Amino acid sequence: MKLINRTHTCGELTAKNEGEMVKLCGWINSHRDLGSLVFFDLRDRWGITQVTLDENDGEVFEKAKSLRNWDVVSVDGIVQKRPENMVNKGMTTGEIEVKATDVKLLNKTEALPINIDENAKVSEELRLKYRYLDLRRYPLQNKLILRHKVALAVRNYLNEKGFVEVETPMLTKSTPEGARDYVVPSRIHTGKFYALPQSPQLFKQLLMISGFDRYFQIVKCFRDEDLRADRQPEFTQIDMEMSFVEEEDVFSVVEGMMKEICKVAGFEIETPFKRMTYKEAMEKYGSDKPDIRFGMELNEISDIVCGAGFKVFDSVKENNGVIKAILVKGGAEYSRKNIKDFEDIAKSYGAKGLAWFKWTNEGFNSPILKFIGEERAEKLFEKLNGEKGDIVFIVADTFETACTSLGALRVKIAKERNLIPENTLSFVWITYFPMFEWDEEEKRYVAMHHPFTSPKREHLDLLDKDPSKVMARAYDLALNGFEIGGGSIRTHNMEIQKKVFKAIGLSDKEAEEKFGFFLQALKLGAPPHGGIAFGLDRIVMILANGESIRDVIAFPKTTSATCLMTESPSSIDKRQLEELKIKITEEKE
Amino acid sequence: MKLINRTHTCGELTAKNEGEMVKLCGWINSHRDLGSLVFFDLRDRWGITQVTLDENDGEVFEKAKSLRNWDVVSVDGIVQKRPENMVNKGMTTGEIEVKATDVKLLNKTEALPINIDENAKVSEELRLKYRYLDLRRYPLQNKLILRHKVALAVRNYLNEKGFVEVETPMLTKSTPEGARDYVVPSRIHTGKFYALPQSPQLFKQLLMISGFDRYFQIVKCFRDEDLRADRQPEFTQIDMEMSFVEEEDVFSVVEGMMKEICKVAGFEIETPFKRMTYKEAMEKYGSDKPDIRFGMELNEISDIVCGAGFKVFDSVKENNGVIKAILVKGGAEYSRKNIKDFEDIAKSYGAKGLAWFKWTNEGFNSPILKFIGEERAEKLFEKLNGEKGDIVFIVADTFETACTSLGALRVKIAKERNLIPENTLSFVWITYFPMFEWDEEEKRYVAMHHPFTSPKREHLDLLDKDPSKVMARAYDLALNGFEIGGGSIRTHNMEIQKKVFKAIGLSDKEAEEKFGFFLQALKLGAPPHGGIAFGLDRIVMILANGESIRDVIAFPKTTSATCLMTESPSSIDKRQLEELKIKITEEKE
Repeated sequence: MKLINRTHTCGELTAKNEGEMVKLCGWINSHRDLGSLVFFDLRDRWGITQVTLDENDGEVFEKAKSLRNWDVVSVDGIVQKRPENMVNKGMTTGEIEVKATDVKLLNKTEALPINIDENAKVSEELRLKYRYLDLRRYPLQNKLILRHKVALAVRNYLNEKGFVEVETPMLTKSTPEGARDYVVPSRIHTGKFYALPQSPQLFKQLLMISGFDRYFQIVKCFRDEDLRADRQPEFTQIDMEMSFVEEEDVFSVVEGMMKEICKVAGFEIETPFKRMTYKEAMEKYGSDKPDIRFGMELNEISDIVCGAGFKVFDSVKENNGVIKAILVKGGAEYSRKNIKDFEDIAKSYGAKGLAWFKWTNEGFNSPILKFIGEERAEKLFEKLNGEKGDIVFIVADTFETACTSLGALRVKIAKERNLIPENTLSFVWITYFPMFEWDEEEKRYVAMHHPFTSPKREHLDLLDKDPSKVMARAYDLALNGFEIGGGSIRTHNMEIQKKVFKAIGLSDKEAEEKFGFFLQALKLGAPPHGGIAFGLDRIVMILANGESIRDVIAFPKTTSATCLMTESPSSIDKRQLEELKIKITEEKE
Repeated sequence: MKLINRTHTCGELTAKNEGEMVKLCGWINSHRDLGSLVFFDLRDRWGITQVTLDENDGEVFEKAKSLRNWDVVSVDGIVQKRPENMVNKGMTTGEIEVKATDVKLLNKTEALPINIDENAKVSEELRLKYRYLDLRRYPLQNKLILRHKVALAVRNYLNEKGFVEVETPMLTKSTPEGARDYVVPSRIHTGKFYALPQSPQLFKQLLMISGFDRYFQIVKCFRDEDLRADRQPEFTQIDMEMSFVEEEDVFSVVEGMMKEICKVAGFEIETPFKRMTYKEAMEKYGSDKPDIRFGMELNEISDIVCGAGFKVFDSVKENNGVIKAILVKGGAEYSRKNIKDFEDIAKSYGAKGLAWFKWTNEGFNSPILKFIGEERAEKLFEKLNGEKGDIVFIVADTFETACTSLGALRVKIAKERNLIPENTLSFVWITYFPMFEWDEEEKRYVAMHHPFTSPKREHLDLLDKDPSKVMARAYDLALNGFEIGGGSIRTHNMEIQKKVFKAIGLSDKEAEEKFGFFLQALKLGAPPHGGIAFGLDRIVMILANGESIRDVIAFPKTTSATCLMTESPSSIDKRQLEELKIKITEEKE
């Protein structure tokens, strides 16, 4: 790397450079004044180089004495080997130090308002307020550098595969059928609003109709939702669409892409990925984004526990519910208190209760043992491959509630008991989703993915007759228990698209009003096509072992609002409000 | 490229594939039914392959007969060499055709509402309305593919050079001192607004303070300005910033980047680029973004034409104005009408008139020859290297007006007379800009680039005394008469930054209110830094020989509003307005 001011970065000098005259720039760290000696670390993005001066260095020595941590300086000096006992084998530059011949103060630094040493305990809120200081910490910097590398790897891979990155508009029209949009008042079209895109869905489909064949974009999308730790109002998607493809083509391109992404983060992964239907994922893992790095699968046990006369179980079964169980190895040690906590978790997912069976030295133990009986208890442990010392947790409820509550418990317990292998990436495709789900509030079907998803060919007839039975050509990709992407083969036939709109309760007139231009486009040469979109933030978070989405975003928004003044919403002046023809109805909260 | 459905694209089969069974997908073009034979071109992004069937093909033949242009089909067939007299050497696939064994209609296409044949004359407005159809034309597709390749080349080059692409927020705070922002009402912070960024200027400077050292981003930026042919409300910048650098480092990185960009478009360019001060550019070319692909430079001629007793010239000179001239080879042929048109152009730039001297077979000719005299006329042509048959145009006015009006005329005439070499890229750095310019309306100095630009070191003293004399460490890059980028070495010293704010009329209190967080950041370890930002749209437009910025944007906005329903602003529902606590003061225009 050619740098006019610097000869090297602070991370590259080794014993090979011994005797060279060098010039480095960076920030002072670990400044130590030992009277007749001054040591400091010079630090930049690439690493740390130790600099030394002694009292024979005259004026420069005095200058170096007066420096403070985080001052910005340039250092001219000679590379020399460190004394044997001072060698630090843990770092690239650990064999050498720079004996300074000149030190220039480039900018004086005041005492930092927060401590940004690696081990300092500083509140998250303060760290976010001074994000630009917190970003000096290497772990955070490295996460953002990983993000950069991942994005670049994606681009190069997709380019190789014939994809074209096309930028779609940011000032667009509100998408009906989506989450809440951020809106942007238009100055020219009085009283009307642009919307910031939740995804470039329709644009990428139009690009297929244009014949681009293979499109991608790494693009900011927006959702005006309340902030959560794992959700930002602006997020970045890896968005893709391909023509003349079926599911297998999409899977194959994506698996190759994930290989490249993981390589950047130092992981070798195997392809093809495992696949699982939505139903199987729910049945076995109680989640549509199962973490398959560990077992502890859910089992249906009504064949064992029903018919013993225990009414709770029997009546669930009679009402088409299910009775699901998981086995925790060594879980017989759990106290009543532990179990109560687990029950609270199950209840937070809607379960009415959490039954359990322990197998202790004294035999089986359960509040409902008297109803179920020893024999059935034994069969239960047999079915779940349990042994003495284990515990079985049971939820009897609707399919949805029993699975999701026990699925949540499964993950919680696995984390607590360290059952999840570290440094493992487990990808799994989830397929065969229902096309629609019933929206109790709106009293209509809504699209489970989105209405542009194609129904399964063999279910087209059911669109009119029984939407609830229609399965979709949709797929999600899950990684370590997170949904990292989702997509589908789309509808390219105008008549089918119309039927889907009808199934979600749009009259022909409404469909025409909302999507007329798109229905027309489908008649003008739409190829079969499909695609997928990934959350870049989340993928990087998982790869970087981050704790929150915020770890992989340079300037995240926080629950308290924003991390920097540059990001806060603020008042705008009167003249601008007048131009926009809008009025604030409530000046203060 | 692996494609499950296709064996090949429509652009790759050659005589080498003779005898192979292939499967292609695409759109029907040039469908010709010759009774016992059917020919059609199958078309996709990669090219065109001719498909043939004859009456012996039975059912498939009948199906092929019924197809229409732009139907979407897949074709199975055998590659065969075309008869000698049918070979088309102008295209990759011109030696072969595919004898179809099966044709499947994938989607039926209705008659297109616009003719998108390469030579069809269709109004720009209709083309934009059906942009997704217009995008099927190869010239437009290729411009967007070039754009993709340019962006990728930039990313790979900058990555090589140690730059990290960091995404900065889209929902940010309004930038004081900028153009008009698009605003986004916040739902959580009642009555307040986010702004969409005009540039990530402060974020990238913060990233330097964070120690990222070399940042870049290809990023959407926004300006709520009225639409013009060469301006879109959302545009894409190549944004860069570097630490511990001076002008030379920025120039060197950028020149390397431009080499890569131009290579992608098939141009070899020379570096380093020419350099010119702002003053020199104005003096010689009458523009701060001079087109130096051709000569016809401006000359100061007051030494020749003043003192002859012609009051117009003499008084301009006395009032510190200038008298500038350009010579047009062969321009003596211009009619009165021609000259009148040129005068109108000069006047539109503020000139009070346009004087001229012809050298014809009858000698010198000019309405002011009687004032200036033959001798001075001769000297004039001598100075400008003129000869018989040429014309000299003269504007006497203030420096600014004389230069810009004659500069505009220079470009206009060069275009008309085909003096501009084609397929030439002439880059030129413009340097040494004034730091401030006087804003007559606001009665204060404003920053010519922006207030974060560093003043020249040797002019720091003038900040308090005479801002008008302060020169800036700013630079622009011009290409073929367009400004494609601009940047500067920034101020990293808090005291100097404060003085600059003062010079543009901000009190200490106002500076603190608007930029307090940034002034603080400058005290907490800001390295010397500088950067630049380029307009990607414009660069690609020039490289692709496009006529308008719209040619390199997939879904541009147009003066009549927007090109697609997906992009139009629209009404939002009452509930959302209530949540946003805003009211539209004027429902209809």
